[in-house]
Amino acid sequence: MYRDRVRLPSLLDKVMTADQAAALIQDGMTVGMSGFTRAGEAKAVPEALAQRAKQQPLKISLMTGASLGNDLDKHLTEAGVLARRMPFQVDSTLRKAINDGSVMFIDQHLSETVEQLRNHQLKLPDIAVIEAVAITEEGHIVPTTSVGNSASFAIFAKQVIVEINLAHHTNLEGLHDIYIPTYRPTRTPIPLTKVDDRIGSTAIPIPPEKIVAIVINNQPDSPSTVLPPDDETQAIANHLIDFFKREVDAGRLAKNLAPLQAGIGSIANAVMCGLMESPFEDLTMYSEVLQDSTFDLMDSGKLRFASGSSITLSTRRNADVFGNLERYKDKLVLRPQEISNHPEVVRRLGIIGINTALEFDIYGNVNSTHVGGTKMMNGIGGSGDFARNAHLAIFVTKSIAKGGNISSVVPMVSHVDHTEHDVDILVTEQGLADLRGLAPRERAKVIIENCVHPSYRDALLGYFEAACARGGHTPHILREAMGWHINLEERGHMLAAG
Amino acid sequence: MYRDRVRLPSLLDKVMTADQAAALIQDGMTVGMSGFTRAGEAKAVPEALAQRAKQQPLKISLMTGASLGNDLDKHLTEAGVLARRMPFQVDSTLRKAINDGSVMFIDQHLSETVEQLRNHQLKLPDIAVIEAVAITEEGHIVPTTSVGNSASFAIFAKQVIVEINLAHHTNLEGLHDIYIPTYRPTRTPIPLTKVDDRIGSTAIPIPPEKIVAIVINNQPDSPSTVLPPDDETQAIANHLIDFFKREVDAGRLAKNLAPLQAGIGSIANAVMCGLMESPFEDLTMYSEVLQDSTFDLMDSGKLRFASGSSITLSTRRNADVFGNLERYKDKLVLRPQEISNHPEVVRRLGIIGINTALEFDIYGNVNSTHVGGTKMMNGIGGSGDFARNAHLAIFVTKSIAKGGNISSVVPMVSHVDHTEHDVDILVTEQGLADLRGLAPRERAKVIIENCVHPSYRDALLGYFEAACARGGHTPHILREAMGWHINLEERGHMLAAG
Repeated sequence: MYRDRVRLPSLLDKVMTADQAAALIQDGMTVGMSGFTRAGEAKAVPEALAQRAKQQPLKISLMTGASLGNDLDKHLTEAGVLARRMPFQVDSTLRKAINDGSVMFIDQHLSETVEQLRNHQLKLPDIAVIEAVAITEEGHIVPTTSVGNSASFAIFAKQVIVEINLAHHTNLEGLHDIYIPTYRPTRTPIPLTKVDDRIGSTAIPIPPEKIVAIVINNQPDSPSTVLPPDDETQAIANHLIDFFKREVDAGRLAKNLAPLQAGIGSIANAVMCGLMESPFEDLTMYSEVLQDSTFDLMDSGKLRFASGSSITLSTRRNADVFGNLERYKDKLVLRPQEISNHPEVVRRLGIIGINTALEFDIYGNVNSTHVGGTKMMNGIGGSGDFARNAHLAIFVTKSIAKGGNISSVVPMVSHVDHTEHDVDILVTEQGLADLRGLAPRERAKVIIENCVHPSYRDALLGYFEAACARGGHTPHILREAMGWHINLEERGHMLAAG
Repeated sequence: MYRDRVRLPSLLDKVMTADQAAALIQDGMTVGMSGFTRAGEAKAVPEALAQRAKQQPLKISLMTGASLGNDLDKHLTEAGVLARRMPFQVDSTLRKAINDGSVMFIDQHLSETVEQLRNHQLKLPDIAVIEAVAITEEGHIVPTTSVGNSASFAIFAKQVIVEINLAHHTNLEGLHDIYIPTYRPTRTPIPLTKVDDRIGSTAIPIPPEKIVAIVINNQPDSPSTVLPPDDETQAIANHLIDFFKREVDAGRLAKNLAPLQAGIGSIANAVMCGLMESPFEDLTMYSEVLQDSTFDLMDSGKLRFASGSSITLSTRRNADVFGNLERYKDKLVLRPQEISNHPEVVRRLGIIGINTALEFDIYGNVNSTHVGGTKMMNGIGGSGDFARNAHLAIFVTKSIAKGGNISSVVPMVSHVDHTEHDVDILVTEQGLADLRGLAPRERAKVIIENCVHPSYRDALLGYFEAACARGGHTPHILREAMGWHINLEERGHMLAAG
């Protein structure tokens, strides 16, 4: 059943139960696990670990690619397993533990975790747990639906547990391109100059003797929870597509635009769907996660090639794509997140980066992570890797939230993840603000005019004008700058009367 | 006298007065001028422009490499010439005009200005004014003490005015390495893998017919105003050098450390001076500006090679270095700021970036630019180019300012230029905080314990503990977060009683 999946015979005697493998993980260890945007995470071993921790106190420092599926972060949190967690998460139970201070969360640019490991600035994983489609004749690991940080974790860890997941088709083999930057001070350029370049190997090369356990599993990835487009996300997509058309007309973009990156989530997905009806052709993606819309765009003939670090699909799309992967295989590659998000490559390719903001302010600073400046939502993810070096750094959000109690455009953001230096274009369903080449006072006018919900526009303009009257390159009234957030916290509406 | 400096004879008839050349600059034009850290700026033409504008209203959009010397920004501001200015400045008169809203200032990462020009996201310069040591037989321009953005400005502009400055030694020729990234979508890797690689040409290659005027000048660069080390800057240097020693002992740095970048200013200069007495050897620099300390370190045999975009020296050092440049020439290179600051190269080389903070907060966010969240000081400069991709992103500042009325460590910074994601090490004269791998609550403890002035420590700890009691990944009390800045603004001291 699994013998064709463990192709180095000497490793067959490492096959054991998840409980047995999980027993290799000891209290206080640092563990690196596969998994990125709820795709390709090791499933059986972390679940066994959570079960064991119910009997026997156990704390680990857990690093992954990005978010895990199958409620693993929830179960690990509930069992009290997580002392430390990096670099990203999306689980509501874990989020609560992060915000009450019981789990230490290190929120990182997704391209940087393994760079810091490589330089021993973070503790190397004692053990890696990697989901695989197969182990090759050489003992190399073929990842499943994500690469994430798996390759470097397996290379850095002293011991590696492999979870062979029979639920994944063997046709995933060949999809991956594993390239690891060389060590400094003799590092050479990353030899990737086109989105469809293949520069590495199709499996993770480690000495097979590092594989200390193989667990056979048969549990699918969690399906994507991305919502279909609604009126607002459709409006955002339309504003953006109109903008792209104007850029093409102005000669600043070619008809095939530039390699597209879209953050996970409903708005970015809507934008990608919107491209289906657009005049653009021969599109490419250089992104993190490939979602339903990637394959819809390929089917429509609009998208020529997609490079990512993971594939996360809805139930609707899952069987069709993975059951017919031959149809897509020459148009797809999955890379380590260090490469999918690498500043060197992002700057070279000149991507169009589309990411979701939690809120932004009148000067173009973006908060992607902290509700009320305090509570962590998910993490910065790859948004900073892309926005800093993109040809176009675009942030999208609906102009209001919670039935209008919250304006996503505020006088001063309560937390900054992307500074005004790194933000080119802001879009809400109200419209699009093009901030390129503008000074802060000019940015404010364009943002207030185009992006703010009408119910907040006068108040925001009032703040801006009063601040300008006091002066400054970036005019603010410090006594009022956080007033909207304080109102929300204390009275439930950003403009509640005092 | 200047015939040996204009070596393409057909250009000799372009020699004219500064007034005549300045007349080519018309109202409403976008002008790109040489100049970086007050080194190598065109001098005669902008001065003539300022004089002319006293008679005849004239507004231009001015872009440079970075700051200009010889009070040019002051004179241009006083004459009302500047409608727009980018990407950096250090002049008090211009600063005032920026802050009262009469000059629109676009504060940019220094590696990005020409990238945005190349993609037509900013208006291309109509005319470039470039200071030169000489014009070659091919009509190419040999820059003087800075490269900055001069090469790309000359390439993008329709017309070029060259200022031949006889005050600069001709021995500067050969020092420069002009490399311009190729156009997307066929851009290739920047082939620089060592600080001393030469990858370009020694002069700026443009068609000679673009040179519309040559002005002969004889006016030196302004001398550096960097202050000598004092007790506090010396203490900062000592903390940092002790830290480097620990990093070497831990095997995370080699004995020659990593290529060093140091922002302009007295603290960074003190740190570089401190290396003179250190056990480190065979050091290299990959920086923007090369200051006195660079040459002191070379003379002491500690520094093997320095790559920069400009050389800015004190009166003490100027004649000695430029008069004896042969002594240094094989250990020096000046590059375009796009290359000296390029994320691709910074990440590849793994530099140690040392830059000055105006203030930072207990979670490690850094404000480099805005006093009280509102008033522009100088600009972000290259600090973001380096900090984001550095092996070590270090920010330094004295713990208090204005006789103790201001703490440089605050509950929440009033403006964010570098987010907690991009800051590894913070240093004041009080001590050093190593933030690597820490969650926000852990960062706060380390920062308060090590960096804060004793007169502010209890108050900051009190804020942090009260905020933690309310919860959050990054605990804040929004009603109090800006309280210290408001106190300062209203009562002259950050802890003044309400």
